[in-house]
Amino acid sequence: MNDKAHRFIENPLLSPSDLEPSWPGLEITCLLNPGVFTFQGKIWIIVRVAERPAQKEGFISFPILTPEGIEIIEIPSNDPDLNKEDPRIIKYKGADYLTTLSHLRLLCSEDGIRFYEPEGYDILSGSGDHQAFGIEDCRVTFLEGTYYLSFTAVSSNGVAVGMKTTHDWKTFTDEGIIIPPHNKDCAIFEEKIGGKFYALHRPSSVDLGGNYIWIAESPDGIHWGKHKCLVKTRADKWDSKRVGAGAAPVKTDKGWLEIYHGANAQHRYCLGAVLLDLDNPSVVLARTDEPIMVPSENYELSGFFGHVVFTNGHIVNGDEITIYYGAADEFVCGARFSIAEILASLTYDHVK
Amino acid sequence: MNDKAHRFIENPLLSPSDLEPSWPGLEITCLLNPGVFTFQGKIWIIVRVAERPAQKEGFISFPILTPEGIEIIEIPSNDPDLNKEDPRIIKYKGADYLTTLSHLRLLCSEDGIRFYEPEGYDILSGSGDHQAFGIEDCRVTFLEGTYYLSFTAVSSNGVAVGMKTTHDWKTFTDEGIIIPPHNKDCAIFEEKIGGKFYALHRPSSVDLGGNYIWIAESPDGIHWGKHKCLVKTRADKWDSKRVGAGAAPVKTDKGWLEIYHGANAQHRYCLGAVLLDLDNPSVVLARTDEPIMVPSENYELSGFFGHVVFTNGHIVNGDEITIYYGAADEFVCGARFSIAEILASLTYDHVK
Repeated sequence: MNDKAHRFIENPLLSPSDLEPSWPGLEITCLLNPGVFTFQGKIWIIVRVAERPAQKEGFISFPILTPEGIEIIEIPSNDPDLNKEDPRIIKYKGADYLTTLSHLRLLCSEDGIRFYEPEGYDILSGSGDHQAFGIEDCRVTFLEGTYYLSFTAVSSNGVAVGMKTTHDWKTFTDEGIIIPPHNKDCAIFEEKIGGKFYALHRPSSVDLGGNYIWIAESPDGIHWGKHKCLVKTRADKWDSKRVGAGAAPVKTDKGWLEIYHGANAQHRYCLGAVLLDLDNPSVVLARTDEPIMVPSENYELSGFFGHVVFTNGHIVNGDEITIYYGAADEFVCGARFSIAEILASLTYDHVK
Repeated sequence: MNDKAHRFIENPLLSPSDLEPSWPGLEITCLLNPGVFTFQGKIWIIVRVAERPAQKEGFISFPILTPEGIEIIEIPSNDPDLNKEDPRIIKYKGADYLTTLSHLRLLCSEDGIRFYEPEGYDILSGSGDHQAFGIEDCRVTFLEGTYYLSFTAVSSNGVAVGMKTTHDWKTFTDEGIIIPPHNKDCAIFEEKIGGKFYALHRPSSVDLGGNYIWIAESPDGIHWGKHKCLVKTRADKWDSKRVGAGAAPVKTDKGWLEIYHGANAQHRYCLGAVLLDLDNPSVVLARTDEPIMVPSENYELSGFFGHVVFTNGHIVNGDEITIYYGAADEFVCGARFSIAEILASLTYDHVK
């Protein structure tokens, strides 16, 4: 299924140079992982904008949020206490930092291809103790008239799931941290089932367990319980090291279809799908053996973090699902699939 | 404050040989970390009983729970894939297991010193996908007529917080996993504040963050949100590597007094205290600089895992708090403190 035909010929739709940095002295390093929704007759994305200062020879520098604003931390590259093996994380003197600081920005489009920043909509920046290293990878769920934003909140306290709600995308209610560390990739179902909210999320474990997709229930979308492990990694497959939900599952007559990402030990991120029971979504009915999308285009192979396709937003129109995705952790791209084609690629004799 | 005067002269109150194993072919390796409550005019403990088969020369063997009952896994000690550096965890071929399987057992006492197993009360064993490696370290909270049991649920899915509720200790309602991995040390307040349940819990992070105590809110005790990081480890102190709540906080006129455990890089577990604001327990008012209890007796220094004092249960009687604790991960012990004395040892100019 992974062929050029699915991808937009206009890819990448957005690159870091397409937007202005949010703060003097910062550059946009990555533009990635958009949440997607419709609002006022347009297609909107809430995109993650990762910024840092221009890097000077001999130093590594990165921004963090403080109550007074953005502070730049600068460390000599040859400092023996500095570990910068991972382009995304700095390890320094027993503390971890991110190399970039992310905020969320709203763009909209009439055709789903050309996106622009509308006037009158603020950027969403991290704030407070639990977002000092930024907010990332926002999923948007529209449910009973409210937009629920679930995103990764990063700070020295850990990596957790934060939530805001809105009706107009101009005023937001902050619901704090809805799932504690270490957790990300939280996607809320766009329908209640048996009167309850459902969400997929992805804890990570320090020992025992792994990077698995879990499901949880809630009476109000804000307080969560009845957590169950739902989808595990599979040894020797493309999703052997980590799996995580994409956007909200798509309701089909066969079940809830969830597009998810899986990574292997070499950090190659692909997309696959699982099918969940309509009435009891904690039951996995089927799963794709092979990915439905593998990094293969230049913009997916080379970038801030290469060999990555990662989705957390889509638009459904009949049988057509348009998946917006982050490519190589640097670009925003799009691809179109037939839902029937994805359903046909599922294997029902699955291994959890 | 850490002197012999606090400890019961009868310590250890309970040792593994004091109880019968739960299953033919198993031995009790550790008897530890009791939750404590009063019921029908007696003091009760719900103690963690850790079992494994008698170890045969040349092999390491441990039990796990399956739908069919207890299964024994046996691995040659010289298997090059076997990592048994930690006496508590087996690492084998990419999977983690526990060396022992824990269940919870009820004992009661008239005097708080001599405990016995009453007739007619079943042991609480793990069951289902999220407890295959057992249940551990139960806290008991009595709130508005209901006993809430919060315990560590361990399986290959991860280490998480499970909950049961009961009124009579004979029938239980299973509330599933209330906080997802990696999490333990969950203590629920014994009073609602502003109409809401509050709990302390302890996530652990794979990167960014650490082993910190968090606080959360709930409308019903089952679904949790508004998570906030509350108490962090302190570099170069006795609690530099991990902190975790003991039992429910004690209400005092100064604030909520929480006895917690802290461990350093050498895995020495001590007890300390923090004081939380009465009306807003997510505010830390004060903390002990030094531990109130340090492993120092033989039964605390030597055992299944030495240099450990760990509490998750106590009885309050006026100014007197009787702390029941696991010593060296092998014995149940007791110690008495004056609450006023603990309060006087707090430092108000605290570092989070």
